[in-house]
Amino acid sequence: MGEAARTEGREAALAELGALLGDRLTTAQAIREAHGRDESWHPVAMPDAVAFAETTEEVAAIIRICAAHGLPVIPFGAGTSLEGHVSAVHGGLSLDLTRMDRILEVNAEDLDVRVEAGVMRKALNEHLRDTGLFFPIDPGANATLGGMAATRASGTNAVRYGTMRENVLALTAVMADGSIIHTGTRAKKSSAGYDLTRLLVGSEGTLGIITELTLRLYGIPEATRSGVVPFQSIEGAVDAVIETIQSGLPIARIEILDPLSIRACNAYSKLTLAEVPTLFVEFHGTEASVAEQAERFAAIASGHGAGAAEWASKAEDRTRLWEARHNAYYAALAYAPGKKGMVTDVCVPISRLAEAISGTLADLETSFLKAPIVGHVGDGNFHMLLLMDPSDPKDLSEATRLHDLMVARALSLGGTSTGEHGIGEGKIKFLETEHGAGVGVMRAIKQAFDPKGILNPGKIFSA
Amino acid sequence: MGEAARTEGREAALAELGALLGDRLTTAQAIREAHGRDESWHPVAMPDAVAFAETTEEVAAIIRICAAHGLPVIPFGAGTSLEGHVSAVHGGLSLDLTRMDRILEVNAEDLDVRVEAGVMRKALNEHLRDTGLFFPIDPGANATLGGMAATRASGTNAVRYGTMRENVLALTAVMADGSIIHTGTRAKKSSAGYDLTRLLVGSEGTLGIITELTLRLYGIPEATRSGVVPFQSIEGAVDAVIETIQSGLPIARIEILDPLSIRACNAYSKLTLAEVPTLFVEFHGTEASVAEQAERFAAIASGHGAGAAEWASKAEDRTRLWEARHNAYYAALAYAPGKKGMVTDVCVPISRLAEAISGTLADLETSFLKAPIVGHVGDGNFHMLLLMDPSDPKDLSEATRLHDLMVARALSLGGTSTGEHGIGEGKIKFLETEHGAGVGVMRAIKQAFDPKGILNPGKIFSA
Repeated sequence: MGEAARTEGREAALAELGALLGDRLTTAQAIREAHGRDESWHPVAMPDAVAFAETTEEVAAIIRICAAHGLPVIPFGAGTSLEGHVSAVHGGLSLDLTRMDRILEVNAEDLDVRVEAGVMRKALNEHLRDTGLFFPIDPGANATLGGMAATRASGTNAVRYGTMRENVLALTAVMADGSIIHTGTRAKKSSAGYDLTRLLVGSEGTLGIITELTLRLYGIPEATRSGVVPFQSIEGAVDAVIETIQSGLPIARIEILDPLSIRACNAYSKLTLAEVPTLFVEFHGTEASVAEQAERFAAIASGHGAGAAEWASKAEDRTRLWEARHNAYYAALAYAPGKKGMVTDVCVPISRLAEAISGTLADLETSFLKAPIVGHVGDGNFHMLLLMDPSDPKDLSEATRLHDLMVARALSLGGTSTGEHGIGEGKIKFLETEHGAGVGVMRAIKQAFDPKGILNPGKIFSA
Repeated sequence: MGEAARTEGREAALAELGALLGDRLTTAQAIREAHGRDESWHPVAMPDAVAFAETTEEVAAIIRICAAHGLPVIPFGAGTSLEGHVSAVHGGLSLDLTRMDRILEVNAEDLDVRVEAGVMRKALNEHLRDTGLFFPIDPGANATLGGMAATRASGTNAVRYGTMRENVLALTAVMADGSIIHTGTRAKKSSAGYDLTRLLVGSEGTLGIITELTLRLYGIPEATRSGVVPFQSIEGAVDAVIETIQSGLPIARIEILDPLSIRACNAYSKLTLAEVPTLFVEFHGTEASVAEQAERFAAIASGHGAGAAEWASKAEDRTRLWEARHNAYYAALAYAPGKKGMVTDVCVPISRLAEAISGTLADLETSFLKAPIVGHVGDGNFHMLLLMDPSDPKDLSEATRLHDLMVARALSLGGTSTGEHGIGEGKIKFLETEHGAGVGVMRAIKQAFDPKGILNPGKIFSA
């Protein structure tokens, strides 16, 4: 399509969208700008307009208009993604789903819930509080559940409860031609045809727009114990993690923070933790099983040079601790004013975690950049938060070099270039290295689902 | 393609395949016949030839020849499927993978294993015995792991360990053009692109030929306790199952057998169980947790009219018990000489299980056909084994009527037409009812992956 035809198509599409949505379509600069960036270092790329959809049928009507005129559509939730997923690199319409925030059906007796895509995970757990149930997936940020599904998010609880891959039972999605499909059922398992649910989970808005989700719920554990465990060395902390996982201990959370992360968290979250390699852990179960798990973990940890643990059993102390962990990214940014974060995200088989982390630390030692290290290490997943100024070519090229080294190492250890953040625009180059000929198959799926390339173009693959 | 061109293409393909494979290509009638049927009632449809492949590269070479000449390819493992998955309804080549039976890599420290697709599940567990690890997915039949992945199999342990969907980490597959792809990694989670692993799992050989799998392993539990629990009524047994699952008890197996199933198993497996509604249960854990689980379960069961349980802690007693359960299908066939089994397979949300089973029993009461009922009821999954003579139109139409009623009821209760057997050729008509517009999306994937339609044509979709 030529530039003139593109402009004409865009204007025609926006006119039709305006007629459909009234003041729920906006081209206001500030709103477009806020919808053209996520929480990462990736530059803002503004959409031409922002639409606030309220129903699945309305999303379908919007997509039909965009399809007719070849206008790109970028789904938008809380904007908390970290690889430029929401930026409008080819212009188009940002489709904001946050007004689709209804909790449609709580099936307590089946441990499932049906929600609209714009429901935030904290709002869901607030709503569920009186049922004795909760939704465990917790990426830190208060993201929308649709966005979490689209990026196959996970976070601190995944070591025990799995990721969005394991916890989405069924979806409603609008496809690139405006048709509406329902995938999966409320049955716990099925062998009926291709697994469209798992195909849409992690597709980052490039195959369809998720508008509703049926999610698994879990009983709030009878007892919960959280603790902070200091170590003499990163190696000791990592080895304790490896042994814990290999022993089969059903730990609910096990997070590493290096001394720099602790320093940043102390400052940001007003804590007074010793600035040493530290594990944040949590156990879920009955009173007896939590006590047993904590004891078994303590024995493992002390074998690897752990100091005295601080345990928090009261809900408010636990909340304070996990808030601090969740804010580690914001704490790191606050620690380095003027810098942005290149948040890496590799995941390796648990037996290779020590090599992956020590290699990363060795790389950092030779660098002028600072980067706290944190991670969901029970899954072999960790992040190096590279603090850098993306407008400074020296910073950017050094951060890129360190990131490339980290990913190459993870792949050589049998791991992946992204454990939970997704490809977005930031990791496109790694996809090919990781999947080889599989990328051709992914492109064939994209072509079959979205032949005009209107769904979040420039993400996962270069357009 | 006209008939003459098809014949010519087939002959050219078989000549090239013969040159490639030597005596590992056969057109012997008995072997073709054995490869044209599974364990179900579906009629034999013989392939034109059977190839015994030994490596992934050889599978790729075979597929390239078949693609060039438009010859259908039907992957074949143990032949234990139940919906006609392996029958050559359009002729072509049966690709037998059972010689690809090498266990390539046991990573005990990461709880994973890499195997060729033809490895049988019992052989894998034999091989693992000394490592203290096991692969839990257990559909009853001693199937190949490739076949289990292709049908998204599950079985008795799924209530605790999940299905093939949750337990395949990575795959090697040959696509319809002969290219080889590797999906997934050994990392426990990933957000790197589309989930090709989950797309191939359950695709029944229609999207690609699985040649290698990386599977999750689990530590053999410290303690295991199995038991047989008799009930006064089916309703009591089902209500005990529902309450057990809703209470969050991490039961490893919970299986229902109705009085007719018990009678058949007593005869076939030389047991002396009372012919009443019965649950077979199993608990995994530490000694303490198994005792606690068994106690909690006993309290629930006795609240629903359970009689005295018989517990088996010795390995040989447990094995005998589960062998009997696994042989329930063969026992039912032996109970009705001359009949075949139409094995239904619905799965519903756990809260609707009582309705689903009592509705099925009410249907059966008005019928002249006999059908034992067994099921992995902890997942809401159960089977009515309709004993019938498919060559008798009255039997076949009555079985079809009962099957249709059962599926319609499951769908109306929020369930699925197949919990674990797959669509094959037997459930094509239900796919559309269950997935509606989603079937169009599935067809688009099939078209993108296999434009010539050579991979297991006539399965999942009518060709």
